[in-house]
Amino acid sequence: MTEPEHADSAFFTPDQHGRAALLEAVAAVVTSLEHVPDRPRSSLLPAELQALVTAIEICPENGVDFAEVAAIFGSVVWANGVVPTDPACVAHLHPPTLLASIATDVAVSATNQSMDSWDQAPVATEVELHLCAFLANRLGFGPAGTGVMTSGGTASNVLGITLARAAAAAAIGVDVGATGLPPEAATWRILSSDQAHFSVQRAAAQLGLGRSAVEIVPTDAAGAMDLSALDRALRDLDERGCRPIAIVGTAGTTDLGAIDPLDGIAERAKASGAWFHVDAAVAGSFIMSPVHAERLRGIASADSVTIDFHKLWWQPFNASALVVADGARFDLLRVRSSYLDRGDELEGMVNLVGRSLDTSRRFDAAKVVASLRTLGRRQFAAYLDAVLALANAAADQVAAQPGWRVLAPPNAAMVVFTEEDATADELRMVQQRLLARGEMVLGRTEIKGQPALKFTFMNPTVEVDAVPALVETVVAELRAIRR
Amino acid sequence: MTEPEHADSAFFTPDQHGRAALLEAVAAVVTSLEHVPDRPRSSLLPAELQALVTAIEICPENGVDFAEVAAIFGSVVWANGVVPTDPACVAHLHPPTLLASIATDVAVSATNQSMDSWDQAPVATEVELHLCAFLANRLGFGPAGTGVMTSGGTASNVLGITLARAAAAAAIGVDVGATGLPPEAATWRILSSDQAHFSVQRAAAQLGLGRSAVEIVPTDAAGAMDLSALDRALRDLDERGCRPIAIVGTAGTTDLGAIDPLDGIAERAKASGAWFHVDAAVAGSFIMSPVHAERLRGIASADSVTIDFHKLWWQPFNASALVVADGARFDLLRVRSSYLDRGDELEGMVNLVGRSLDTSRRFDAAKVVASLRTLGRRQFAAYLDAVLALANAAADQVAAQPGWRVLAPPNAAMVVFTEEDATADELRMVQQRLLARGEMVLGRTEIKGQPALKFTFMNPTVEVDAVPALVETVVAELRAIRR
Repeated sequence: MTEPEHADSAFFTPDQHGRAALLEAVAAVVTSLEHVPDRPRSSLLPAELQALVTAIEICPENGVDFAEVAAIFGSVVWANGVVPTDPACVAHLHPPTLLASIATDVAVSATNQSMDSWDQAPVATEVELHLCAFLANRLGFGPAGTGVMTSGGTASNVLGITLARAAAAAAIGVDVGATGLPPEAATWRILSSDQAHFSVQRAAAQLGLGRSAVEIVPTDAAGAMDLSALDRALRDLDERGCRPIAIVGTAGTTDLGAIDPLDGIAERAKASGAWFHVDAAVAGSFIMSPVHAERLRGIASADSVTIDFHKLWWQPFNASALVVADGARFDLLRVRSSYLDRGDELEGMVNLVGRSLDTSRRFDAAKVVASLRTLGRRQFAAYLDAVLALANAAADQVAAQPGWRVLAPPNAAMVVFTEEDATADELRMVQQRLLARGEMVLGRTEIKGQPALKFTFMNPTVEVDAVPALVETVVAELRAIRR
Repeated sequence: MTEPEHADSAFFTPDQHGRAALLEAVAAVVTSLEHVPDRPRSSLLPAELQALVTAIEICPENGVDFAEVAAIFGSVVWANGVVPTDPACVAHLHPPTLLASIATDVAVSATNQSMDSWDQAPVATEVELHLCAFLANRLGFGPAGTGVMTSGGTASNVLGITLARAAAAAAIGVDVGATGLPPEAATWRILSSDQAHFSVQRAAAQLGLGRSAVEIVPTDAAGAMDLSALDRALRDLDERGCRPIAIVGTAGTTDLGAIDPLDGIAERAKASGAWFHVDAAVAGSFIMSPVHAERLRGIASADSVTIDFHKLWWQPFNASALVVADGARFDLLRVRSSYLDRGDELEGMVNLVGRSLDTSRRFDAAKVVASLRTLGRRQFAAYLDAVLALANAAADQVAAQPGWRVLAPPNAAMVVFTEEDATADELRMVQQRLLARGEMVLGRTEIKGQPALKFTFMNPTVEVDAVPALVETVVAELRAIRR
């Protein structure tokens, strides 16, 4: 191998010189993280941030020393983000991240494997397949279970529903990828609950079926799909001459964390010939807990499952997977290309592009495997218990405030709550004022028309005794608004 | 902020202790990169790699010290990847990566902003918008030009064509996202050349139009779209009562690097009312070069442009963008959600989820901005010149071998070539044997039915005098097969 000119090269090289240069550059970046504020975020507003950022010339005629660039990023960028480790950063399923993952990701960027073809990712392909087999096994799938990594829960849901569409078409002898939606597609429906993630609707829109093809099934008070309502919806579709091509069960709704009755949905999907997709973006990691895995009963009967590692698996973005019960179903998607997936490869070579809606793709499985191995199952399960305990403590604390109530007991890391007389506008002001001042990054949502605030506890290292102050801050802010 | 228990926490914290722990973990990973081989790849075959990988227990009952995990990754994973810095790693548009990008990405993973909403990425949102404005400006778009980052060139092409579909529907009063494809969609066609990337077909499949909705326009000998053939195709569609909803121009085809006549396509797109999307995944970075920018003449008339930073911008996966001439077109996609994109935010707050097909999304703009600022325009342009010089040198060298020829003069970093009597099977054997032995990661493709081999030069620090040995290795391998 020709040695690059060390004095000049801006590229990483795996030799000793290159490794030293990489570590030096990373050290500058890690130092710049000292600007991360000791609070949920700075108090700068959009216009102020925009002024700071647009003052940075992206590509000057001549380059700038990297130490200077890192320093600017520290004082402008890392200083003004939100801080997912902070106890008052509680708006979204937006996790702090594991050291093992962050560090492993450095090698991923440096070695830059691309997951589309074996000849860009020989061993990385095997690592991704190994991780997918692990997930398939924990989900209770048989030996045909496997999967593919995706860029997020939304991408996984879109891929799962894409497979459902392909299967529905294949059942009437149509290759939908080749010839497009057949006339029968006007009768195709996707069922999901009124608490399902909006990416189900987005998938229907993307696939040409339209959001109107999503049949909304009502939920119970806890936010889980009502099976008798599902039965009614299926009967109603039948009467209207419509065909259920997919039923989407949610394992952990975005707001209430509700888990649909997956075993009951599985039965109905089977009886109606619909693909059974489970969106387990929120509660998928319960498969790792001896206590909580039981709550996913029925997931083993799914055709496809969304797993979202950048939620309650504490991975840096992006890291998700679609796991399928039968890997042969991916053949419904496959498109050959002359330069990439040629079909005449070395024995055992898998080109993952055949399973994916992406082509070039980062080796996201590495950080997941490295961090799970570093943590171990007991610690992982303990972290899950810790965030659930924070949510329960917050629910109790909210309920103890005169006039305040939770909309449902917490099922996962979230607590949705309101005050009896609070208007939507008051709740909006509470959330926005705390955000603008950088005191709290608080969630705000609406459950069946009821506006509410939301805590999402993603940091298991936060002590339970930090919770009362969070609740008090919210209560005091509403009081201040009314004064 | 409550200090986490330092002794136990597996999480990154931005305090001094956490920064030291991160640097220590990264040091272990960087050390493990000493296992990266001093050749294009190891010689292990799929079954051997699978055996090594599946021996790693992903999540044991009790965790393993991270230093041990990093060491295993070194000897199993980093030892057996492909090495994009190696001069003989020349199969794909698969780049070595910039130190500044790799290092900045550490802070991205540690601070873990999520690009879907302002309250998960306040300053990061401004950085992404700043980068998109920079691209829009270099492309020659007006002040309404902007964009969004995506996971790859394929995702950018799918997003661009999704906007085209939405615009076509809106023109006949249909909200395709809401109600699905109207009956008129049976007549909708997307035009692209026979050398366009397969993601155009994939987009048509995904959107419910089907690959048969892609009208293939022939190319000239250099691989660029033939404008008179485009005229014929448009007339033919008109006669058949079909409507061209999008014309996709390619700026840099995957194999030959050909740049379609963008100004000519722009005129025809305008005249026919079609959306003009340019897939500039390969040659998009020519906008940074005073010499090569001129070759993209006409791109300023595009409605949307795919920019792929993980190709000739030398970024780690994933990093891409879709740049649009008019940001208002994103409104065609927008779906409100009660918890995320509520439409009643603080003044100036942008929730990028409204522009994207993803929800949670990594802050990929950071590494791009940091590395462009570190390199500067002159060095960037010099690197582009360097890879083009390698391709030209290889083309000359191939042409100098008796019986060998290039299929077209190089337009970018690629050289496609063959030997006059070589069969498809012989070329397959050349590529596979070199890959299996770990001597060269060589490209193989087919141009209009003609099987060929391909070099793709992505490492600008490789010396031109390394090229003859590459050509000689290929020539010798074919000779060895025939013996």
